[in-house]
Formats: sequence, C-alpha cells, structure tokens
Amino acid sequence: MTAVILTIGDEILIGQITDTNSGYIAKALDKIGIRTVEMLSIGDDRDQILDTFGYLQDKVDLVIITGGLGPTKDDITKKTICEYFNDHLVVNPDVLAHIEDMWRNLFKREISQVNRDQALVPSSSTVLFNRYGTAPGMWLQKGQTVFISLPGVPYEMKGIVEHEIIPKLVREYDRPYIVHKTILTYGVGESVIAERIEDWENNLPEFIKLAYLPAPGRVRLRLTARGKDKTIIENAIAEKVTSLSGIIGDIIVGYDDEEVLEAVVGKLLTERKQSVSTAESCTGGKIAQTLTSIPGSSQYYKGSIVSYAEEVKTEVLGVSKQTIEKHTVVSAEVAKEMAQSAQRILKTDYAIGITGNAGPTTDDTDKGVGIVFIAVATPDGVVVEEFNFGQPRDKVIDRSVNKSLEMLRQEILKR
Amino acid sequence: MTAVILTIGDEILIGQITDTNSGYIAKALDKIGIRTVEMLSIGDDRDQILDTFGYLQDKVDLVIITGGLGPTKDDITKKTICEYFNDHLVVNPDVLAHIEDMWRNLFKREISQVNRDQALVPSSSTVLFNRYGTAPGMWLQKGQTVFISLPGVPYEMKGIVEHEIIPKLVREYDRPYIVHKTILTYGVGESVIAERIEDWENNLPEFIKLAYLPAPGRVRLRLTARGKDKTIIENAIAEKVTSLSGIIGDIIVGYDDEEVLEAVVGKLLTERKQSVSTAESCTGGKIAQTLTSIPGSSQYYKGSIVSYAEEVKTEVLGVSKQTIEKHTVVSAEVAKEMAQSAQRILKTDYAIGITGNAGPTTDDTDKGVGIVFIAVATPDGVVVEEFNFGQPRDKVIDRSVNKSLEMLRQEILKR
Repeated sequence: MTAVILTIGDEILIGQITDTNSGYIAKALDKIGIRTVEMLSIGDDRDQILDTFGYLQDKVDLVIITGGLGPTKDDITKKTICEYFNDHLVVNPDVLAHIEDMWRNLFKREISQVNRDQALVPSSSTVLFNRYGTAPGMWLQKGQTVFISLPGVPYEMKGIVEHEIIPKLVREYDRPYIVHKTILTYGVGESVIAERIEDWENNLPEFIKLAYLPAPGRVRLRLTARGKDKTIIENAIAEKVTSLSGIIGDIIVGYDDEEVLEAVVGKLLTERKQSVSTAESCTGGKIAQTLTSIPGSSQYYKGSIVSYAEEVKTEVLGVSKQTIEKHTVVSAEVAKEMAQSAQRILKTDYAIGITGNAGPTTDDTDKGVGIVFIAVATPDGVVVEEFNFGQPRDKVIDRSVNKSLEMLRQEILKR
Repeated sequence: MTAVILTIGDEILIGQITDTNSGYIAKALDKIGIRTVEMLSIGDDRDQILDTFGYLQDKVDLVIITGGLGPTKDDITKKTICEYFNDHLVVNPDVLAHIEDMWRNLFKREISQVNRDQALVPSSSTVLFNRYGTAPGMWLQKGQTVFISLPGVPYEMKGIVEHEIIPKLVREYDRPYIVHKTILTYGVGESVIAERIEDWENNLPEFIKLAYLPAPGRVRLRLTARGKDKTIIENAIAEKVTSLSGIIGDIIVGYDDEEVLEAVVGKLLTERKQSVSTAESCTGGKIAQTLTSIPGSSQYYKGSIVSYAEEVKTEVLGVSKQTIEKHTVVSAEVAKEMAQSAQRILKTDYAIGITGNAGPTTDDTDKGVGIVFIAVATPDGVVVEEFNFGQPRDKVIDRSVNKSLEMLRQEILKR
C-alpha cells in the first residue's frame, strides 16, 4: 500500500516554516506498513492543487493532505477539494457543536460566522474528529485513491492521525509488515564504517536494505525489511544485527528507542539510580533541554546553572576569579571548576561543565572560534577534554551537546 | 524565474529525518526573487530519480537537489545524474586536493579510495566548492533547466548555497524583485484579526498577497509583493503596513527580523541597558536557550537556574519549603519566589520564574495537566499569571516559552 504526503502552503515554499508534519505522518504510516513514495509541497493555489490531485489520482492508494483548512481567505483547500470531487459543502452538526463548545469554554469569546463555517464539509466526506482544534479532518475516495485532508497545525494534525486515521487504516486495509532496526554508533565516520562492514553489506539479502544516516559526531545505520511474514522478517533482521555487532560492536552505542544519546544516558542513570546536572555557558541551556526531552528524566536530572555571564560563573557557580584570570574563561580549568561546582551545588553524582567559543565572535579569550572544553565531574574526580568543533555556531553547539552526552556515557560505563 | 527543490533520501520518506534543507534553500532563493513552485522528496531510487528529472525538465528554470552524495552504497545521486545527462565521471583535481587536505588535517586519518571517489564529477558539470565538507556541489544544464546537486548535510549545503549558488544566480540571471513584510501580533486569534482587517484585506491590490501564519499564542501576517520595480513595490508594501497598523496597532508587537519575541525583547533590553535571567522548571532550559539563540544576547541575558528537582528549588534557588507545602510546587507563590530568587542571585533587572505541569503526568500537585504559572520579577516588584496551555506536552512548553517572553516584554514597556 502506497501513500503520498502533500502539504499545501505558500509559507513553506518561501522557507518561512519548516514542514514537520510530513515526517510525522510518514513515520506513523511506516509503522503500519504503508510506504510513502513521495512528499510534495505546493502553494495555496487552486490550479496547482487540482493538477496535483489529478496527477496522483490512481497512482497511489493514499494521499494525505495538510494545510489550508484555516478560517482565513488564503485557506482554499476545502473548496478546492469540493471542486475536484464535484461535491458541495454541508454543515456537520457534530463538528459545529464541537466548534461552538471550544469557543465558549476555551477561547471564551463570541463565535463568528467564519468560525462556524469550519463545520462545513464535502457531503461525500467522512469526518475525522479534531479534538485539539476546530477544523475537522476529512476522508474522501475517488477511484483507487483515498484523499485525506488535515489541518496544518501540528498538534491538531497529530491528534487526528493518531486517534482517527491510523486506527481506520489498520481496520480497513491489509498491509505488509515492515521492520526497521536502527543501530547508533559513535566516534567513527560513515566511510570508515562502510569499509569495515563491506562484506557484510554485500551479503545482505534482497529484501533487507541498509542506509547510513550521518550526523555531527555520530552515524546511525538503519536496516529495513518488508514482507508478509512478520516472524521471518524479524528473525532475518535480528540475525543481521547480531552479525553486524560482531564486526563493529566496539563503536555501537545503542539501538532504536535508545537511538538518541540522551535516552541512552537516561536509561543508564535510571538503572544505577544516579543523577546528573549541568553548568553551561556557550550551549545556553541546550544540554539541559536535551536531557529533559526524555520522559521520566526527573528521575535522574536535577537541574542546571546556565552561567552565560562571567560574573554568574564566579558568583553563582563559584568558579575562582584567579582561574579565569590565569587561563581565560574558555579553558580546561574553568570547565572543570564549572562541572565540580554544579555537582556540589546541585548535589548530583555526575555533572557536565562546558565553556567555549560557539562563534561567530570570541569575546575576550585567546582560544579560536569552535574551541570548546567539556568536563564531566564523576563520583571520584573530574575529566576534561578540548575540542575544535569548527563552524558555524549551530554546529558547534550541537556537537558540544552530543559530545558532552557521549563523555557522560563513557564515564558512567567506567564505573 | 521558477525553481523546484528536490530532496533525495529514504530516511525522509520514513520520517526519520525532518527536511530542513528545503526551507533554507527556498528562503535563500526567495530573497533573490526566485520563486519555488514546488518541493519534492523522493527515495534513493534510480527509476524514481530519473522519472522526476524527466517530469521537471523544461517545466521550471532551476532544480536544486540535495541528498545522496555521500560515500556509501545507498548514495546514488551522482551516478544517476550522469545517466540522465548521458555523461561520465572524471576526477576534479581541485576537489581531490581539498578532500585529501581535509582528511589529513581535520580527520587526521588515512584516506581511502571511496573518499577519493567523492572527487569524481560529471564531465559537463561546473563544480561548486564545499568548504565545510568533502562532497562537491555540481551545476549542470539540459534544455531550459539548470540542475544543481548538493550534499544533504545541512552545514555543508548552506555553505555552498551561500557562497557559490546565490552569487552565481545573481550574476547570471535577471530576476524580479520580491518584498515580504511580516507583522507579528500577539494575543488574538487569526479569525478575529481577519474580521478586524476584512475591508483592508479586500482592498489590497492584485500584486500584494496576504498570508496568515498562526502559532501557539501568536499570529504572523505576511504581505508579499513581486514585480520589476523595486521602489514601487517597497512603497506599496510600506503604505499597506502603515494603514494596517492604523487598524490593529494595539496587537502589533514587531516586524520582520524582530518577528520573534526573543529578538523583540533582546532589542528592548539592549536599548535600556537592562538584563534578564530565568528560573525554569517544566520548560527545562528552553527559555534560556531561546533567549541565547539571538546573537548579542550576552549583552542582556546573564544566566538561568533550571530547578527541575524540588530540592534544587529550595536549596539552590531558595524557594521557601513552607510556600511549597502550603501551595504545592505548581503555584503562583512558588513562581513568584522563583522569579525573585533568580533576580537576586543572578543580579538582573528582570527575571522569569516558571512552574507548571507540562504533562503527561502531574507529579504531586493538585493542579491539572497544562496548568502553568509564569512570574516576571521587575525592578519594582513581581507579577504572576496562571495559564492553562492544554495538551500535549510540547505545546505546553512552547506556549510557556512564548507567553513568558510576551509577559517580559509587557513589563519592560510599562517602565
């Protein structure tokens, strides 16, 4: 079963908004064995929308459309759908009641006609309930192709996909089974890995595909198999993962759900009933935010001190002024003191301390742009390393976050 | 002049990666008057790539392709391009020297043949230098259409777009002038705004388009005009912005570059030589990270205390245990003490204190999921408000960040 995901919106085509909806939908479809063959973004343009529908008609089983269902004049998706389906709009009483309800209880405002008009739907459509907003989702079919229209607001779209669309697709369609296994590696580039696993890769069966996903400081390997028999596929993938870890086990850090470092670290700390805190400068709170993105992180993450200004380092963290004068604020010595201060003040087993020049300017220090010192305070000491994360600023910050979590993981595993 | 942006990569089609490259490229093209009419994502599939090239041939002036230029077996873009152009690969000596250089100096590793092979390019292509990586960009033309192939790694792609592609397009092509003006409003929903500006919107000339971009807690309005005469267009837009602020000036917060609250706030604090700090709980450092995303924020942002655990609130921030016992940790009283503690400890003019239930669980407090208390400590006191930001967790955190910056802005403007 194949799908195309279509996003409608001029704001996407001028790069004002990053489309995160398509990825979410693709992931949800993939989980239930539906293969997205293409993603398209087009404008709020009647002709382009009609041309695109016509082009996709009967080429794929499913077209999922997001965007253009708002109450303002530039939202033309609904009437264009009506035109394509030679249909007319009718008021759906359940949707109208829901909209009036939201306006009365949540927005606490008087409702207007243009808001009531969000309850109009093509007469041939099946309405998909939008629990987090007013614009309903709509499911229609023409020939071999199902067209589903969803609001573009991410939370609203996700609610409808999760609660209405996925269950309906699972109930009504027969789908193949897909297995993915993602292997997270650290510290080695993709071409070096490729060389090490060359024979293994060449010997993969036809129905298993391997993909490399490189990112700053880490490479993920993804195995994918599709087929009718769940057991056969799962076994085949498991067997390949085992043989792979026989070859590159030294650089494998985790699998799948653990596939982000912050989850790996979270799992380790939870198991050992240990805690962590951070003292951040150039990363501006991003390590804290990354750690807290994991549900249950309050088990092991206690807090952070973001010491952006020098006086916060000395007066709040307690870093010695002499150390800064002697070594400058971007130095191994300051990183170590920051880590140990956080550990002491926030009373955690581990603490990350980080100081560096994310760039583009370097303020008053003799170290260049991209130079970062990361320290990890442990139950029995403190380690520190210097890095050159290059340019530009975003990359330095992202690599700093990843490297500090990697160092933390290594220190935990040593004990 | 029209463009289509094409991303190649199976990882996008299963939703494992969010495509941020397309938006970046679209924005860069838009700045120089080139209109992106469509964005496409397809798989690492030879047939699909060739079909797509054939479909786009002569329909648009420019096709910009990202992805699939890595050194591993799943990267097939380059040889598929060769096939489409009936071309063959040759070694580009400058690219080879650059690759060998990077391997020697940066990676400090022995280079392998598969890395050297990244210096192979179609003989008819113009090479676009990749200063941040090894895979070169390539520019080729067939019929009316220019095809540009870029690496998918964001920092590398951006470097080539900024330093090679945009200058070349500006030099070699005649482009119309595009003006956008974005107006940032706060606190009122898009349909309410639409009603207030209905006459003004109906009277916009043909060549000026209005779009609504709603987000949690704020709506951006975007005016766009395209044409040959820069002065006429700029004046027309300016005139419309002036008349618009006559109608909804009470809810307008900023324009364009200021269009994010953290930049508006940064500008105000810089002008007044004042400072801010934060004491965060449920937002986990996201307010700090948002404030520091603005270049120059070290002028006014001093630091934060992320008090994720209750003992960090009492022992590091100094929130009174009796207050927590009496009102629970998610309360107006605790938010106020957090804000005032941050203000005192970090010695800033203003401070944001925030405590709430982002969800999905509520820990031990009698307040429901989505309830958040935001306090702003000012030079002469402290204010606090209660909010219900609903569900899900991400939305509560984002709305908390936006609302706290909005409250900060309001407090600054009162004095």
